[in-house]
Amino acid sequence: MTTILAYDIGGTTIKCGLFDQAGTLLKQWSLKTNRKAQGSGILKDLATDIKAHVKPADLIGIGIGVPGPVLGTTVSKAVNLGWQNVDVKAELERLLGFNTTIFVENDADVAAYGEFAMHQSSMRSMALLTLGTGIGGGIILNGDILRGTHGVGGEVGHFVMGEGLACNCGQNGCLETFSSATGVSRHTEKFINEGVPSTLKPDQLNAKLIFEAAKQGDQAALKSVDQAAVYLAQAIGYVNTALDLERVLIGGGLAEAGDFLLDKIRTHYRHHVFPLIKDLPIEKATLGNDAGIYGCAWVVKQHG
Amino acid sequence: MTTILAYDIGGTTIKCGLFDQAGTLLKQWSLKTNRKAQGSGILKDLATDIKAHVKPADLIGIGIGVPGPVLGTTVSKAVNLGWQNVDVKAELERLLGFNTTIFVENDADVAAYGEFAMHQSSMRSMALLTLGTGIGGGIILNGDILRGTHGVGGEVGHFVMGEGLACNCGQNGCLETFSSATGVSRHTEKFINEGVPSTLKPDQLNAKLIFEAAKQGDQAALKSVDQAAVYLAQAIGYVNTALDLERVLIGGGLAEAGDFLLDKIRTHYRHHVFPLIKDLPIEKATLGNDAGIYGCAWVVKQHG
Repeated sequence: MTTILAYDIGGTTIKCGLFDQAGTLLKQWSLKTNRKAQGSGILKDLATDIKAHVKPADLIGIGIGVPGPVLGTTVSKAVNLGWQNVDVKAELERLLGFNTTIFVENDADVAAYGEFAMHQSSMRSMALLTLGTGIGGGIILNGDILRGTHGVGGEVGHFVMGEGLACNCGQNGCLETFSSATGVSRHTEKFINEGVPSTLKPDQLNAKLIFEAAKQGDQAALKSVDQAAVYLAQAIGYVNTALDLERVLIGGGLAEAGDFLLDKIRTHYRHHVFPLIKDLPIEKATLGNDAGIYGCAWVVKQHG
Repeated sequence: MTTILAYDIGGTTIKCGLFDQAGTLLKQWSLKTNRKAQGSGILKDLATDIKAHVKPADLIGIGIGVPGPVLGTTVSKAVNLGWQNVDVKAELERLLGFNTTIFVENDADVAAYGEFAMHQSSMRSMALLTLGTGIGGGIILNGDILRGTHGVGGEVGHFVMGEGLACNCGQNGCLETFSSATGVSRHTEKFINEGVPSTLKPDQLNAKLIFEAAKQGDQAALKSVDQAAVYLAQAIGYVNTALDLERVLIGGGLAEAGDFLLDKIRTHYRHHVFPLIKDLPIEKATLGNDAGIYGCAWVVKQHG
């Protein structure tokens, strides 16, 4: 057996990777996510793709990341796919016509595990916060994904930080309403509408423009970015006071702002935590959008 | 080998227990904590006590809880004992004149492990918050203590919740400045001095009086208790959104207020977290001050 397949299923595309037994990425491609009919075609597309890429006898296993909580191999709910209580392994094996090693994990968890695999050496614990449309959170403890009782472990994006805007999860003021790309845009617009001076047009905002403006001293942009950084630092403080990790990584689109954002987070963090853990390294993630497929492959490699 | 010894070292007393190999408590007693000369007599007292209670040949092992962060068997700092970088196992074996199995753990961690051992059955994860002079926090994951990189794991009492009073750790607004027995007293006094109506005398406050007054509708007392409950609920929300535990237990003096406090925490908690984890059981701890010695014994039993 020589081949590991990895599928990181998102609401728009499925990122795919073919790895050798050592976990080296040999080939990557992507599929369109077919969300029609409650996403009932997604696993059919995967089965076809698997058969096209590998003979059963060569397959070490398949790692699959999904945007929702996972218990065992069952996805309890993935709103962006239209899934509810889908046993991915059972359904995929039925479609494939053979049984094989299949691991199913939350997408933020495999992204964290992918970054962990790349940073390895002697590291045993870390968290990855991915700042995109929302905030994905994955935690690695003792070298393994922290899954939790209901598959919710690591959902740092849903820390309720204070009075704030409505979140997709049904709560208000979740971390991702402040500190995701969407959150930074929504708050910049809010601040402009409240009269905070700005050169930006409230109907033409995106995170890239806002960070550029903030670096130039634009008041509304800076207020929103500072707020995002303070809440991120506070949330990292809670995670690390509870878990005492070795490292926290920041990924996703907002991490592209680099040290401008990271330094704000680091400064606020070190002045607002227990002295013994103030030197936590907070660093930029390195794998970008590929973190998920690396993590999927690594789960198969370590546990398969 | 038939005997496990347990010592839970506090700033005033050392709680001691003698257990059989099954983890049953056969005898318990206490020693005065000798804090003179940077606590250099504490381990001498322990060595004398150990020799008085068990023959080396009968000893399975010794579990020791200490009020500070622990790495391996070394206490990096325990302010209440005057200790700094004390390798408890090495020093105690020198004093005993023989080597044996010795585990050293943070006191809040062994308290959590003791409660865990009693609740066991199929449970794998929980947290214990002990509301006393401060707030002790211990987390159990995958059936073991979450120790963390610097032995700080589980220090939920030092979550920085917002602008607030000074904390012993050097920060401001830590959870324990709001929600410990001391925190509730300090805030009730503050509210009375700010003019919130109350029948209580600000110079004669304690947590018991405050909870009795709060139950009768005393405004300053109720405001302080409600605030303590809201911050506890928020902190439990962060812990559980990150860790997705099976259960959270509340212990310590304030837990004696029972459902009056617990119901406030439960109500606020379930309205301020991710829907999938809103049904987390939040319950009163059962072992009281004995939790620590049970946890010490259990660590030896499970790992010894």
